[in-house]
Amino acid sequence: MNEFSFINSIYRKLGPDSKKFSGDDAAFIKCRSNDLLVSKDLLVENIHFNLSYSAPEDIGYKAVSVNLSDITACGGNPRYLLIGFAFPQKKMHIMKKICTGAAECAHRYKCLLIGGDTTASRSDIFISITAIGQTDNFIKRSGSNKGDLIYITDYTGFSAAGLIFLQEKIRPADFPGMEQVIKTCIHNHRRPEPEIKKMRKLIAGYRISSMIDISDGLSSELYHLYESNKKKYGLQINESALFCPAITSAGKIIDKIKKKRNSALELALHGGEDYRLLFTSPDLIPRHLALKIGTVVSEKKIFSIGSSGRKKIECLGYNHFF
Amino acid sequence: MNEFSFINSIYRKLGPDSKKFSGDDAAFIKCRSNDLLVSKDLLVENIHFNLSYSAPEDIGYKAVSVNLSDITACGGNPRYLLIGFAFPQKKMHIMKKICTGAAECAHRYKCLLIGGDTTASRSDIFISITAIGQTDNFIKRSGSNKGDLIYITDYTGFSAAGLIFLQEKIRPADFPGMEQVIKTCIHNHRRPEPEIKKMRKLIAGYRISSMIDISDGLSSELYHLYESNKKKYGLQINESALFCPAITSAGKIIDKIKKKRNSALELALHGGEDYRLLFTSPDLIPRHLALKIGTVVSEKKIFSIGSSGRKKIECLGYNHFF
Repeated sequence: MNEFSFINSIYRKLGPDSKKFSGDDAAFIKCRSNDLLVSKDLLVENIHFNLSYSAPEDIGYKAVSVNLSDITACGGNPRYLLIGFAFPQKKMHIMKKICTGAAECAHRYKCLLIGGDTTASRSDIFISITAIGQTDNFIKRSGSNKGDLIYITDYTGFSAAGLIFLQEKIRPADFPGMEQVIKTCIHNHRRPEPEIKKMRKLIAGYRISSMIDISDGLSSELYHLYESNKKKYGLQINESALFCPAITSAGKIIDKIKKKRNSALELALHGGEDYRLLFTSPDLIPRHLALKIGTVVSEKKIFSIGSSGRKKIECLGYNHFF
Repeated sequence: MNEFSFINSIYRKLGPDSKKFSGDDAAFIKCRSNDLLVSKDLLVENIHFNLSYSAPEDIGYKAVSVNLSDITACGGNPRYLLIGFAFPQKKMHIMKKICTGAAECAHRYKCLLIGGDTTASRSDIFISITAIGQTDNFIKRSGSNKGDLIYITDYTGFSAAGLIFLQEKIRPADFPGMEQVIKTCIHNHRRPEPEIKKMRKLIAGYRISSMIDISDGLSSELYHLYESNKKKYGLQINESALFCPAITSAGKIIDKIKKKRNSALELALHGGEDYRLLFTSPDLIPRHLALKIGTVVSEKKIFSIGSSGRKKIECLGYNHFF
């Protein structure tokens, strides 16, 4: 899509199969056998990522990964990527590392870079990603029915805990016995993975009535499911299903740092950037594929049942400026 | 693709057909009957556009238009758009006007907005556009053959002249008798149009062996054609075919302002952002569809034949920082 040597170096990183797509004004996709899904994300330095919390390679990896997650959350297999970068020339060395990380994620999930754009900016780095996937089973957010079970593909809150550990400059050695928990949280923040394999197994074996990925936090994604379905049904969440020993430990560390209580519940409900899949199904799905966390109910509310009784779940997902 | 009210207001501008695509993590395209073309562009304030030279509505219009031109240049009919914006909150009023212009162009060419992303930036506005088109006749840059004729769909240089008039604060009234030329140049700079209709007629009636749009300047696009075809053949351009009375007049005005000579030739050969189509064909094509400007020759060079004899054409297209 453009002629500059920099983007050619990205194509080289992504291998000869990518190269064959470059060189024309638009990329050609032969698609007579499958329908397509397209997602688009714009990531801004110091808004969505911060070079003091993540290595440039991690930022590139995550930028691709979260787009693949969007395709996955609609029942698609990610296949193609278009990546645009804007950056000041003095940050070229950082951009090359970001590209290396982006290429690593693209390789891992067998996505081809088919186009892009590279241009200047005055100070911050901007990353614009378009991901394209194939599907023969488009899953919307809006299909849940009364009585469906509510699932997440894995526990939530690790990424948000990782971000707090990075912001507070917590090192694993600072909390003896908790090293692995801290490392896991930081890794999940820096390198979240799209849950493509689990999505494929779920679609192949079970009826999935609605699906969304957890980017801003479980609570806000529950609200998205609810609103997408025109608030026809409510969502009841079992609080106890949200905890595992690791998230309980992470919560305890954050209680200590922040002098708070119940951080584990806050992390699990409102912590963003986990990129787990949240979905509904009328089927009972085994634990190794997904965790059952609640039920679609006729009462038109979103609430939890927990140790302190029944509570409305607030919508506290992260929101950049609105 | 995201939940914010701002992007919802864009969807409203683009009508109810666009709205049905929003609300999921990715947009769904049913495409069993046609192959797709995808283009991607990143536009940065004060790099690609400047609010002192164009109204925000013009910037939005042009941002969409140039992406539709990329699809057109590959033989595609533009159908869908994904638009991402990053901007500081204090520029919200400007962004709304940019969106109005973008919507106007999308409407005019019957493109649906199927996704996007809206986020914050610290100072500059960033616009990221992905355009998707359908095609059953993908035309590459690389298909020209010896003996093919070289065409452009219309004269080049107007947009570059318009930019100079804006930069130099020239008003039409400053050059009596030249008002219309100045207005045309400024309009072409602010609101270039994708040549979709001409492309369709050309494809329907003639054999088109290669095609590209003229974004950076005729000279650099000639080099792109040459390089895409692995420099198998050279390109001979007839200088006189590049001039019409209007571009000659624009050149005279610029000669006067800049105290130069031969501005008309420079504009025609190296002036960017015209978004005309440059293509090759073995067929003789009537003048109302395209201007014949040269021939694909066996001599492996890019040169012009003109009043001062034979000259190498330099590659002087615009390049943001490389």
